[in-house]
Amino acid sequence: MIKFGVIGYGYWGPNLVRNFAEANGAAIAAVADVDTSKLDIVNKRYPAVRTTTRFQDLLDDPGVDAIAIATPVNTHFELGMAALKAGKHLWLEKPMTETSLQARKLIDEAAKRNLCLFVDHTFIYTGAIRKMREIIKSGDLGRVYYYDSVRINLGLFQRDVNVISDLAVHDFSILDYLLGEHPVAISASGMNHFPGTPENLGFITLFYESGTIAHCNVSWLAPVKVRQILIGGSKKMITYDDLEPSEKVKIYDKGVSFTDDPKQIHELRVGYRTGDMWAPKLAGTEALRLGAEHFVDCIADGKTPETDGGLGLRVVELIEAATSSMRGRGETVYIQSQRRKAS
Amino acid sequence: MIKFGVIGYGYWGPNLVRNFAEANGAAIAAVADVDTSKLDIVNKRYPAVRTTTRFQDLLDDPGVDAIAIATPVNTHFELGMAALKAGKHLWLEKPMTETSLQARKLIDEAAKRNLCLFVDHTFIYTGAIRKMREIIKSGDLGRVYYYDSVRINLGLFQRDVNVISDLAVHDFSILDYLLGEHPVAISASGMNHFPGTPENLGFITLFYESGTIAHCNVSWLAPVKVRQILIGGSKKMITYDDLEPSEKVKIYDKGVSFTDDPKQIHELRVGYRTGDMWAPKLAGTEALRLGAEHFVDCIADGKTPETDGGLGLRVVELIEAATSSMRGRGETVYIQSQRRKAS
Amino acid sequence: MIKFGVIGYGYWGPNLVRNFAEANGAAIAAVADVDTSKLDIVNKRYPAVRTTTRFQDLLDDPGVDAIAIATPVNTHFELGMAALKAGKHLWLEKPMTETSLQARKLIDEAAKRNLCLFVDHTFIYTGAIRKMREIIKSGDLGRVYYYDSVRINLGLFQRDVNVISDLAVHDFSILDYLLGEHPVAISASGMNHFPGTPENLGFITLFYESGTIAHCNVSWLAPVKVRQILIGGSKKMITYDDLEPSEKVKIYDKGVSFTDDPKQIHELRVGYRTGDMWAPKLAGTEALRLGAEHFVDCIADGKTPETDGGLGLRVVELIEAATSSMRGRGETVYIQSQRRKAS
Amino acid sequence: MIKFGVIGYGYWGPNLVRNFAEANGAAIAAVADVDTSKLDIVNKRYPAVRTTTRFQDLLDDPGVDAIAIATPVNTHFELGMAALKAGKHLWLEKPMTETSLQARKLIDEAAKRNLCLFVDHTFIYTGAIRKMREIIKSGDLGRVYYYDSVRINLGLFQRDVNVISDLAVHDFSILDYLLGEHPVAISASGMNHFPGTPENLGFITLFYESGTIAHCNVSWLAPVKVRQILIGGSKKMITYDDLEPSEKVKIYDKGVSFTDDPKQIHELRVGYRTGDMWAPKLAGTEALRLGAEHFVDCIADGKTPETDGGLGLRVVELIEAATSSMRGRGETVYIQSQRRKAS
Repeated sequence: MIKFGVIGYGYWGPNLVRNFAEANGAAIAAVADVDTSKLDIVNKRYPAVRTTTRFQDLLDDPGVDAIAIATPVNTHFELGMAALKAGKHLWLEKPMTETSLQARKLIDEAAKRNLCLFVDHTFIYTGAIRKMREIIKSGDLGRVYYYDSVRINLGLFQRDVNVISDLAVHDFSILDYLLGEHPVAISASGMNHFPGTPENLGFITLFYESGTIAHCNVSWLAPVKVRQILIGGSKKMITYDDLEPSEKVKIYDKGVSFTDDPKQIHELRVGYRTGDMWAPKLAGTEALRLGAEHFVDCIADGKTPETDGGLGLRVVELIEAATSSMRGRGETVYIQSQRRKAS
Repeated sequence: MIKFGVIGYGYWGPNLVRNFAEANGAAIAAVADVDTSKLDIVNKRYPAVRTTTRFQDLLDDPGVDAIAIATPVNTHFELGMAALKAGKHLWLEKPMTETSLQARKLIDEAAKRNLCLFVDHTFIYTGAIRKMREIIKSGDLGRVYYYDSVRINLGLFQRDVNVISDLAVHDFSILDYLLGEHPVAISASGMNHFPGTPENLGFITLFYESGTIAHCNVSWLAPVKVRQILIGGSKKMITYDDLEPSEKVKIYDKGVSFTDDPKQIHELRVGYRTGDMWAPKLAGTEALRLGAEHFVDCIADGKTPETDGGLGLRVVELIEAATSSMRGRGETVYIQSQRRKAS
Repeated sequence: MIKFGVIGYGYWGPNLVRNFAEANGAAIAAVADVDTSKLDIVNKRYPAVRTTTRFQDLLDDPGVDAIAIATPVNTHFELGMAALKAGKHLWLEKPMTETSLQARKLIDEAAKRNLCLFVDHTFIYTGAIRKMREIIKSGDLGRVYYYDSVRINLGLFQRDVNVISDLAVHDFSILDYLLGEHPVAISASGMNHFPGTPENLGFITLFYESGTIAHCNVSWLAPVKVRQILIGGSKKMITYDDLEPSEKVKIYDKGVSFTDDPKQIHELRVGYRTGDMWAPKLAGTEALRLGAEHFVDCIADGKTPETDGGLGLRVVELIEAATSSMRGRGETVYIQSQRRKAS
Repeated sequence: MIKFGVIGYGYWGPNLVRNFAEANGAAIAAVADVDTSKLDIVNKRYPAVRTTTRFQDLLDDPGVDAIAIATPVNTHFELGMAALKAGKHLWLEKPMTETSLQARKLIDEAAKRNLCLFVDHTFIYTGAIRKMREIIKSGDLGRVYYYDSVRINLGLFQRDVNVISDLAVHDFSILDYLLGEHPVAISASGMNHFPGTPENLGFITLFYESGTIAHCNVSWLAPVKVRQILIGGSKKMITYDDLEPSEKVKIYDKGVSFTDDPKQIHELRVGYRTGDMWAPKLAGTEALRLGAEHFVDCIADGKTPETDGGLGLRVVELIEAATSSMRGRGETVYIQSQRRKAS
């Protein structure tokens, strides 16, 4: 039984507490938040859980095995490092840290102390994304030509992070998980329409050595909510609409074929192939539950989580690169990752 | 009565012939195509129309007042210049020419000879786009924050032009018409997934001096067909879905508002506003018919068409700039238009 | 402050308890359920609320002002009558009772004792239905020609009530509220595909004296979930899609017009009118909250609820008539209501 | 080569002429219409085709092998009988005749003269309906529990036939083709909202001996256009949306299962099964072309068409029964067909 202390009971914290309370092998020991009105809610809902306004109380508590941090991103590094130094396993909300340097330091600290470091890129634990990876890994999709994502809605404007850090962060983790490849270059453009606020709209292209190209369109300023990903392969194509109540993932037996017939030298020798469409049944387990139980298993067995510090770091690198390119109006930024993922 | 000679009876030519045959003030005199099987079709459908494999016959025909050119883009300049030199008014399919230099020469020649030059950016004559311009010009939308277009489907791959020239061309003309402003910079990325073919997928960002940002996502390699534009303004927002059988254009009374309340100095002072949605009735006239009659009127009255050579040139400039940026992986390309539009 | 005792903490009871706990002027005093595991949940969530397996305890409790009954429909009459006889105001889940005779007895008992009787036809308190009534009552829709509802999904099969009692019940209450008129006849057809179970699929037509015709298509055996209502009027038409996240209600300026031109005697003189579409902003308050506060107000002020026993009775009459017609393969059943609503 | 004479060049006639002109084994010899302006159009489009205002000219023409009748339904019997008596094969638009008695006479006449009689229930030749029949016949769907169709739009009001004859006619032919079974009873309701016009809205339920129940919702007075069919089977379920540009037919691996576990005696022993969804590729041939070539083949080989007089008659019987029930407010009408289909 892994006993959790959770720091931060704002927007996402309640989901963590509920899942740690119910996940197999997990339990909630304590919750910290600077806002006592939040703690009152915890007290009503979970009378047996200890609450405190001082996160240090959780670090000092020998009954706490793991710390989960669901506070603003600019506090992740300081709180996370303190937790590791107190010998606690660490669950960090995404993005992992503000800078890639901070991410590297946390990874090193966790490795040195042999502690488990989990970054909560929740989409990796959804039935939809796992099914898509299964299809890609099986070779059914063929070579991946492109990934094209639209992730837009009205609000929520954030004060300290831009829309890339808030929304494209999901695509960056999904791309890493699906492709097992880190991009070599990024070109991004975007804008903050309101002085003194972070960028509220961004368009990001990622270039991969294998020839795959990926694109993310993210916005806090759209009149309609869209959560759609297209993936085109040489054999099949996928659409993923996260707002559909069912049949979120569809696989199209569609594609393009080229002939080398010399008689058609003056024609563009492209043919279209169109066949059945298929929407596989998806696992329905709540992603956060699956993630929580995976973390518990990793702690118990000394394994590395699927969403480990390395994934967290690569995502932060992409946020840094994309933000830098965006401020240069699309200027190409090359990625020199020292931690390329071994797929 | 303006009598038309049409060069090219392939994909789009039949639509031109049908509309010139039926438009008020217009008539079809002759059709030229190098493929006699195409001319056989013309002969059956329009027994009274003269057909020929030699375009020169149309230029030599004193009964022809205007020439419409619906051939591949790499022939537009030569055929168009010959038509102007023969004293004919000129209708050119889009994009106007392969290069902006060619476009400038045609504009100058038409001006010198006092001939009417029309570029067939058909979307400008649709009820949807005209309604959107009306709303923007009225000030109801407020300041235009962004334009975001998705224009994707499977095929048709083209041999001599890339996907920007084929699909983003529509957005470039629509943007010019809606905003009355030429962009100052472009950043584009894209890819040709099949060696020896033009780029089949592109992502283009356009930056405007007024602060508007525009983005176009175009592809010949998508499993589903999408034709969607979002426009966000400071007062209202628009969605335009060209595949909807009705209610193509929707206006949302949604937006963001900021407060300057100093007490909220530590908060991001953003509020959301959400109200009614409204789908105006759109004029149902076929766009090509409206364009044809507008061209006829312009010839008769010596007026400049809404889609004149200047618009055609500005669009070609954007295709050149976007293609150049795309080949530089998003490298920012600045636009120095000598013919900024006076809106 | 009205203090509630709630009987039944199964599927719907938790929603009642949550809303009574949070509604202005209301509080939860006690909860009864025969299943102690349900009471354990209440104890954890609401430590201050008294729980019991014996509903009689609630009736005997002088601290309880009103009883809400969220148990299977075959217990409504007995429990409801006991509550009234104990002097408690009464909130009944829908349908009110198994038979119209039972409904009449409860209405009479409540009237005699001057107690407030509320039937929880929740849809009446949604922003969508209230907006639709506003439009109809204003005359903007014109004469109501028809109401056409589809309410289908896979499951939940019920053991003791048929699909009419489970799903068409919503349409019957909505129709009563929107039209202010009771039908004069019903024709229904339906089927139970599984021996020994209630009908799982039904098609019901309701005929009104004013000429309005209404139809409900209800099913527990559909592969997709649909919740759609169309209402056609002589001036405008409405669509209501309850599964849309926004713009649930749309008003179409569409219709039919007839001419009496004698020259057109051989033509069917029908013209179509098509104009703008408009989706009004809807009030977002949770319907159950609005209903709870309305009940509290009615008790305080001695007013009659919008969803009173009369509405509940008329709905039960329609369920009886529709079920009878359904078992006669569509045989017309005439309604002789002694309690026609005074609109 | 079968040479066709077509009577009637109004709404549907041009489609017939075009398809007979292009179908393998067919040719157009002559077209008759009382309206000379229609014949002018024919003359322009098909200069070689003979035109006349007198249908008798076509019957007298020995160069005409088959007559296609695309005139108002109240002329079908007279014209069809004359064509058969002139020794011509006969193509009739749907519905075949105004009364079932007329249909029987035409069938008998054609049989006596050994002429081919084809009724143009076009849906039977669509890729979608043929795929659905294939799935049902293969047993993959299991037992057919229900068929549920919505076929509504604004207009076109007709002067001489009601909405059942105009729209439900499609469902009646599709049901016959898919189920191979004639219903035993019908209950229908509907209304004409405008005095002196036929019913513009109808709800029809069909009962089958096998236990299948079918329902059709048809209207000329809906603000939106819908063309949707659901079919529920014991193993799988189908949705068919004819307005979708692709993936019109979807097969859901969803259903209900019952257990006989005596321990669950107090529970309703229903389980839900939900699995993959699959959208098969559909044949893209134009239905009318397929029908035309099938008719030509049947004439050549002396075969009976899939949409023969027997199907046409059964559909007319259902229109008669449904209209009769509708005028009795849902009164059950039993069908005594003497020509039950041998599937």
